[in-house]
Amino acid sequence: MTKLRLDISTSLDGFVAGPNRTVEQPLGDGGLQLHEWVFGLASWMESHGVEGDGATGPDDDLVKEQLAQPGAVLMGRRMFSGGEDAWEDDPMAEGWWGDTPPFHMPVFVLTHHARKTLELQGGTSFVFVTDGVESAFEQAQAAAGGKDVAVAGGANVVQQCLRAGLLDELQVHVAPVLLGSGVRLFDGGDQAKLEVMRVVDSPTVTHIKYRVVK
Amino acid sequence: MTKLRLDISTSLDGFVAGPNRTVEQPLGDGGLQLHEWVFGLASWMESHGVEGDGATGPDDDLVKEQLAQPGAVLMGRRMFSGGEDAWEDDPMAEGWWGDTPPFHMPVFVLTHHARKTLELQGGTSFVFVTDGVESAFEQAQAAAGGKDVAVAGGANVVQQCLRAGLLDELQVHVAPVLLGSGVRLFDGGDQAKLEVMRVVDSPTVTHIKYRVVK
Repeated sequence: MTKLRLDISTSLDGFVAGPNRTVEQPLGDGGLQLHEWVFGLASWMESHGVEGDGATGPDDDLVKEQLAQPGAVLMGRRMFSGGEDAWEDDPMAEGWWGDTPPFHMPVFVLTHHARKTLELQGGTSFVFVTDGVESAFEQAQAAAGGKDVAVAGGANVVQQCLRAGLLDELQVHVAPVLLGSGVRLFDGGDQAKLEVMRVVDSPTVTHIKYRVVK
Repeated sequence: MTKLRLDISTSLDGFVAGPNRTVEQPLGDGGLQLHEWVFGLASWMESHGVEGDGATGPDDDLVKEQLAQPGAVLMGRRMFSGGEDAWEDDPMAEGWWGDTPPFHMPVFVLTHHARKTLELQGGTSFVFVTDGVESAFEQAQAAAGGKDVAVAGGANVVQQCLRAGLLDELQVHVAPVLLGSGVRLFDGGDQAKLEVMRVVDSPTVTHIKYRVVK
């Protein structure tokens, strides 16, 4: 059965981006530190078209697993547009993911503005869904070809998935940093019980995988 | 050298207490779930005067370590009074810890209101410090007899310790639950780099121990 999964890097104080976000610095002050653990990994470099020999080991195995599971992606409009609201309403805008986005599969973007599906290089298409998170998940599920659906964020979409009872698994990559302020992964959501499925730790990040108790 | 350490249980979304706190329910809605992992452990039961055979194993070893390290405790006024501001100004009030508090060592309470030291049973004394967190730490350090100082919270005192560069180590016990709202451990603080020292995981809690990079 198709599962809806979230894999996301946060600071110990729960931020997915730091303060003072701009188009040039979409992760805000200090936000890049959340992802430093991933940039040098072989599987990440390969999937993002970065040349060179990447690191292997437990972190890389985990990213490999995470890349292999989904057949479709669910994301919010700001994650598509890079936070630039103007881009969203422009039917020609291609978001901020470039010509060859790193997804290589259909991506369902939850938005209030209908627009035509965007087919990009490398197998990524952006499909814009205007009738809510359940519909977006159903369409993603249908497109996933029996694989899972990954929710890519942002925080608001994650909350919508939790609230609708759609989220099955949640893996948090906790970076050893306090960002102080910025964008929280969880903010004003509902209460939920989780079950620890697995913990993988390395010097630069702690991966905790949970099942959402429904 | 005396270290200042914090050991604290939080939800995955970073809360140390849930919403709707009252004197009867000081941890708020759902907040007790943060501490469920500890109540059945042999070392915790012994230190809190609970009879019966407690569980042993990695969680218990960790609590044993945590109980053995400090020679003095630092806490905020609300943690002393249980959130009842009225108690704080009453020089006869004994806080909410009962006749025999579970500390068995000097506890330095950071407050704006001077009052006489309170000597209670079992070796716990509450010393009230009105001249700031550095002074409270210095007094606690002197009283710790070469052992460490534990900061017991709340969140505000933890922030003051971080900001003053006093906090050396931070161990977070992450309970597998989302509380949605309530009292955050970290809220509007400064940015800080941490180093992962150790991760211990069990089905009911994930313990991540950090060194604060100064």
